[in-house]
Amino acid sequence: MSRIETIYPADRVSLREVGLRDGLQLVKKFPSTDAKQRWVREEYAAGVRHFEVGSFLPAKTFPQFVDVRDVIGTVASLRGAHGIALALNERGVNEALASGVGEIASVVSATEEHSQANAHRSRDSAIANIKRLCELRDASAHKPLVNAAISMALGCSITGAVDPKEVLRLVDKCLEAGVDFVAIADTVGYAGPKQVGELSRAAVRLAGSKPICIHLHDTRGMGIANAAAALDEGVRILDGSLGGLGGCPFAPGATGNVVFEDLVFLCESKGFATGIDLDRLIAVRKILREEMPDEQLYGGLARAGLPGGRAKAA
Amino acid sequence: MSRIETIYPADRVSLREVGLRDGLQLVKKFPSTDAKQRWVREEYAAGVRHFEVGSFLPAKTFPQFVDVRDVIGTVASLRGAHGIALALNERGVNEALASGVGEIASVVSATEEHSQANAHRSRDSAIANIKRLCELRDASAHKPLVNAAISMALGCSITGAVDPKEVLRLVDKCLEAGVDFVAIADTVGYAGPKQVGELSRAAVRLAGSKPICIHLHDTRGMGIANAAAALDEGVRILDGSLGGLGGCPFAPGATGNVVFEDLVFLCESKGFATGIDLDRLIAVRKILREEMPDEQLYGGLARAGLPGGRAKAA
Repeated sequence: MSRIETIYPADRVSLREVGLRDGLQLVKKFPSTDAKQRWVREEYAAGVRHFEVGSFLPAKTFPQFVDVRDVIGTVASLRGAHGIALALNERGVNEALASGVGEIASVVSATEEHSQANAHRSRDSAIANIKRLCELRDASAHKPLVNAAISMALGCSITGAVDPKEVLRLVDKCLEAGVDFVAIADTVGYAGPKQVGELSRAAVRLAGSKPICIHLHDTRGMGIANAAAALDEGVRILDGSLGGLGGCPFAPGATGNVVFEDLVFLCESKGFATGIDLDRLIAVRKILREEMPDEQLYGGLARAGLPGGRAKAA
Repeated sequence: MSRIETIYPADRVSLREVGLRDGLQLVKKFPSTDAKQRWVREEYAAGVRHFEVGSFLPAKTFPQFVDVRDVIGTVASLRGAHGIALALNERGVNEALASGVGEIASVVSATEEHSQANAHRSRDSAIANIKRLCELRDASAHKPLVNAAISMALGCSITGAVDPKEVLRLVDKCLEAGVDFVAIADTVGYAGPKQVGELSRAAVRLAGSKPICIHLHDTRGMGIANAAAALDEGVRILDGSLGGLGGCPFAPGATGNVVFEDLVFLCESKGFATGIDLDRLIAVRKILREEMPDEQLYGGLARAGLPGGRAKAA
């Protein structure tokens, strides 16, 4: 069995906690390293195995990830846990490789306009960067997985609509560059389930034996419906954050990633075993509330609890 | 064209604002009659045409609906608007018929246990009541539509799981009793989209030329995903409440009905024209905030606004 099949088995869903990276992009107060490590450990105890733990971006701009190596270390210490870190340039990639992290994530914007405005480079340049990342990975000792996320893949904060053909062209380019899998990201939460389903179906078909990941934001309340649509089309890797932590610089007041707890409930309700204990997972929100009291947490399961019935009935 | 086809055309979705009835079941402070009337008028101006406006239950127990006739009058004054009121016994039905309301809603619990505990009568007795309602309707001058809702149809606060065969048996009984259509209600928000899709498919098939309505609560964050699943299976009448107003006596802290604004966005994103202007609809939340300042309102669209793009881009 190949490395990726061990880490992301094709016959089950893999739910990735991205709160420690994407969830912390915009928070007002950063959790302590100790809190991050407890967050990882307690979610691991609840059954979570995939953690996006931070990024190797300049610490001056992203001080919340200065301790990324410590969190990578915590994940590495837990049997069967898998850590993911973002790296966008060669310095970052080399640092990520040196850290021993299990997976390195890179990004390319779906539109040229967003690529230039956000990353100050062309999409071709971003793809070249991903190709270089794969070469460095191949030359490395521990050979982490590499994924490329297509940001703004379902709607762009600059252009509005995005041509799915362009997204699929980029998926193809990323696979050609050597990534282990591609993530489709609704970065600004523009999409509904029909659009997500259609793009997921085309991407899954295009990627063949390689998996497709869906990264959804719940900006307009469609997150869970979009996740359901992606699952229906064969997507088996889904991102979420505990309590829906996170926000969006392009949509003030918007919620963040799709709520991890509700995503677990969705998967279980659709017959996908997640191996995650929902009550234990919900209990981890306590760490977020204590460390980031100003952040609003979301989620239906945390409010209402698991469905009851006889046991709970008055 | 029959009356029901005019009010609920089979070739498009009908979204029903149930905030004025179901949404007010548990609120701490009741909106004034004037506020209810503005709520109706402003949503009508936004394009909403179906309003559940209150109930003919004992005013001593449900004082929030004492002005139901006034709100029925407001709806009746708006061309093409349709009012719905709940009535559960013969006195209530007669009052509802006298009020000239466009539709009378009744309820039967999906489980015998819930029927006995909540309505202090058997399901057979509830069905007999619905049959009597249909007879009174047939004998009336203006012959309002009649719908029967199967409460707890996707999970019961007492028994937990609910046998879909039992629900379908009750759907059949209600149709036999003479209702114009049946509503399937996930009263306590237990279901995921797979379950909702499967029950919707079976109910739509069973009902034949009569429509099926889905009444969802967002208790566990599955509301929009469940609505998407029902739409996929041919359900074309969906309930929601502005801001997700409402709660659930069986799940403290739980949200209420599925958020109306997000439901509109979902339908439009799936290619169903709703005729509703989302910006104008969202603006109506102001009335709810002013009248019920203690109620938490929900919804992604209201937080983040409609997807932007070029026009909004910085």
